Amino acid sequence: MAYRSLTEQEAVEYVRGIPGLFTEGAQLTSQEIGDGNLNLVFDIREEATGKRVIVKQALPYARVVGESWPLTLDRARIESEALQIQHKYVPDLVPQVYHFDPELALTVMEHVGDHIIMRRGLIEGNIYPLFAKQIGRFLAHTLFYTSDLGAHPYEKKALVGRFLNPELCKITEDLVFTDPYEDAPTNNFNPLIRREVEAIWKNKPLKLEIAKLKYDFLTRAEALLHGDLHTGSIFISPTSLKAIDPEFAYYGPIGFDIGAVIANLLLNFAGQHGLQPDREKREAYREYLLETVENVWSEFVSQFVSLWHKQAKERSAHVEGLWESYVNRLIQDTAGYAGCKILRRVIGLAGVADLKEIADDQTRAEAERLALEIGQALILERGHVQASTDITDLVRTVTARYYEGAALV
Amino acid sequence: MAYRSLTEQEAVEYVRGIPGLFTEGAQLTSQEIGDGNLNLVFDIREEATGKRVIVKQALPYARVVGESWPLTLDRARIESEALQIQHKYVPDLVPQVYHFDPELALTVMEHVGDHIIMRRGLIEGNIYPLFAKQIGRFLAHTLFYTSDLGAHPYEKKALVGRFLNPELCKITEDLVFTDPYEDAPTNNFNPLIRREVEAIWKNKPLKLEIAKLKYDFLTRAEALLHGDLHTGSIFISPTSLKAIDPEFAYYGPIGFDIGAVIANLLLNFAGQHGLQPDREKREAYREYLLETVENVWSEFVSQFVSLWHKQAKERSAHVEGLWESYVNRLIQDTAGYAGCKILRRVIGLAGVADLKEIADDQTRAEAERLALEIGQALILERGHVQASTDITDLVRTVTARYYEGAALV
Repeated sequence: MAYRSLTEQEAVEYVRGIPGLFTEGAQLTSQEIGDGNLNLVFDIREEATGKRVIVKQALPYARVVGESWPLTLDRARIESEALQIQHKYVPDLVPQVYHFDPELALTVMEHVGDHIIMRRGLIEGNIYPLFAKQIGRFLAHTLFYTSDLGAHPYEKKALVGRFLNPELCKITEDLVFTDPYEDAPTNNFNPLIRREVEAIWKNKPLKLEIAKLKYDFLTRAEALLHGDLHTGSIFISPTSLKAIDPEFAYYGPIGFDIGAVIANLLLNFAGQHGLQPDREKREAYREYLLETVENVWSEFVSQFVSLWHKQAKERSAHVEGLWESYVNRLIQDTAGYAGCKILRRVIGLAGVADLKEIADDQTRAEAERLALEIGQALILERGHVQASTDITDLVRTVTARYYEGAALV
Repeated sequence: MAYRSLTEQEAVEYVRGIPGLFTEGAQLTSQEIGDGNLNLVFDIREEATGKRVIVKQALPYARVVGESWPLTLDRARIESEALQIQHKYVPDLVPQVYHFDPELALTVMEHVGDHIIMRRGLIEGNIYPLFAKQIGRFLAHTLFYTSDLGAHPYEKKALVGRFLNPELCKITEDLVFTDPYEDAPTNNFNPLIRREVEAIWKNKPLKLEIAKLKYDFLTRAEALLHGDLHTGSIFISPTSLKAIDPEFAYYGPIGFDIGAVIANLLLNFAGQHGLQPDREKREAYREYLLETVENVWSEFVSQFVSLWHKQAKERSAHVEGLWESYVNRLIQDTAGYAGCKILRRVIGLAGVADLKEIADDQTRAEAERLALEIGQALILERGHVQASTDITDLVRTVTARYYEGAALV
């Protein structure tokens, strides 16, 4: 069947055709719940049993800030295959794929039920005590088992070939690593922070470090990354987590995925400046976020190193001192990529609600300036980072200095 | 046509069928000139005109030290495609491919004429004053234009996919980076150096550095490497150079190719201990080899950096300070990979004639011990290398110390 985008009713007919999904003659309802910018997302439900599935169909274009540009449908294959690989390693943390249709660029998958988007949860001030353990396990298992440490070199190279993903990588290359650091037309920032943004455009040591991080993103095929693991790609409930939307999946540096998680926790940390007017509550929530940053790293690293010792097939992996040297570089990468992801969310095309939803322009600018300070410090100081507390200490120091300087408390 | 290995006569019939290669009814002779371990190589000649072509056919197995194991025929495609890409950038330094037949794993290519294998030329004590300029240009152009600096990211990722080359990479991974550093059955060294080899197997700092270099080889997809650029893969004459046999071509760290060239110059340097009995002549030739090492690097780097400034399409490449930081890491990689390639040629499966042809076991052991000292120093000291003279100074120091200690002058 040639590609065409489905209607709600056609999505119902489509799932009826998949054997074993619903019983014959089941009464199904269908609702399109996507934001319509990149994909159609149909919530298909059998009223009698409450059984639900998601039908996700890629659209042949992306619509961002009113603009529209063509975007490969192959990203549906990438997403579907990445979900299946991740599901193999952490079945409870990734939706199960029931069916993939390459012609229609369409995936039928598990409806994860009663979850919310984590970014929304953080904006609402929720506490997720299981999050660090969950995402730490997701990162450790999906990254270890697709790396040269956990996969046979033939298997790894075959996966590299299936996830070259040039078009979506180009979006990351431009929007995370290039455009925000020069006066590019895609940038989209609060006019009140123009002075700070222009200072970044002129900051040569910063731009050099970002260029190095970009070069590593382009060349270091370490593991199959999720590739876009921000808090908007995480469905969460008090007891459960599901990582979704891996259409940017690609073989890249492991620190890029961990950095994405940490960056988005810190974007919310900065956003608290405007999101939470009560100082005591704000400080308590920020403490929770920083503890979570530390716990994400420590959960990741303890599980990753444990897999390394027990499961690494690569003979050289067991050479004395290698894992320590590896982990030491990894936390520095993580800090650097977290910094890039923070800066791009403030300066570049795609902002985050944690900042955008601060209604007052001036207050929002203050939060954004803090985010820029944190992002720059993570990039420039990453060479001194050896533990997750070095990251959070850096955030604490920058934040204290920021409030002192701006007299904004 | 299903795969079958050709006879000399069948090779003639085959080239007759390629339009435009020879005139109809041409009188052709055919001689199989390969060593028969991996490939058949037919030298096809038209007596009347002297016109010649090479027909190279991959065999479905490798025969090394009496053993035989199956080896993918896809390596013929890899070699043929790599030759064509390299020929595009340095047409005078790579044989032209006229025809490739995937079924027969067979390439018809330019006969390069009056050249000898460079390893043989060095063993005979020849001087090649153009070599550094030639190989420097080969390295600079083929590596730059296939890297993220010189290629569009879509083109680069497509090339990564065409050159995953898992089977031949596995040979490198095992024979260059793993087996020589433990008591592996593939090793094949002079029994007289067992004490020195066992010391390497127990040298933890050395093994850690080699494991890091291996991990970078596995993960750093910087440019399309030749992948096996030793002096046996270089045809040379006083005026011309042709780099051949890129069946190990793969996206890896750029320093691996440069290191291969330098390693093989230094293996000959060590071999001079037994190859050249006249001390004065030996020292003069060693000086020539060390100057060549320096010139290979300086020719490479000046052309690579010039391409970077003039041709780099990647926007971030022009950030101030990036090329200096890049080149600084590159020479350290180069030293490290050169060291690995030296050690593996002494300890591992495939030795080099520069050492093997020293008839006296004791004299050969002395040359091999010197090679081991040089290889280890390059790996362990590479962090301090900033210029090619740091590499040659290291070789000079190690060599002087070696002769003092061994009283072997």
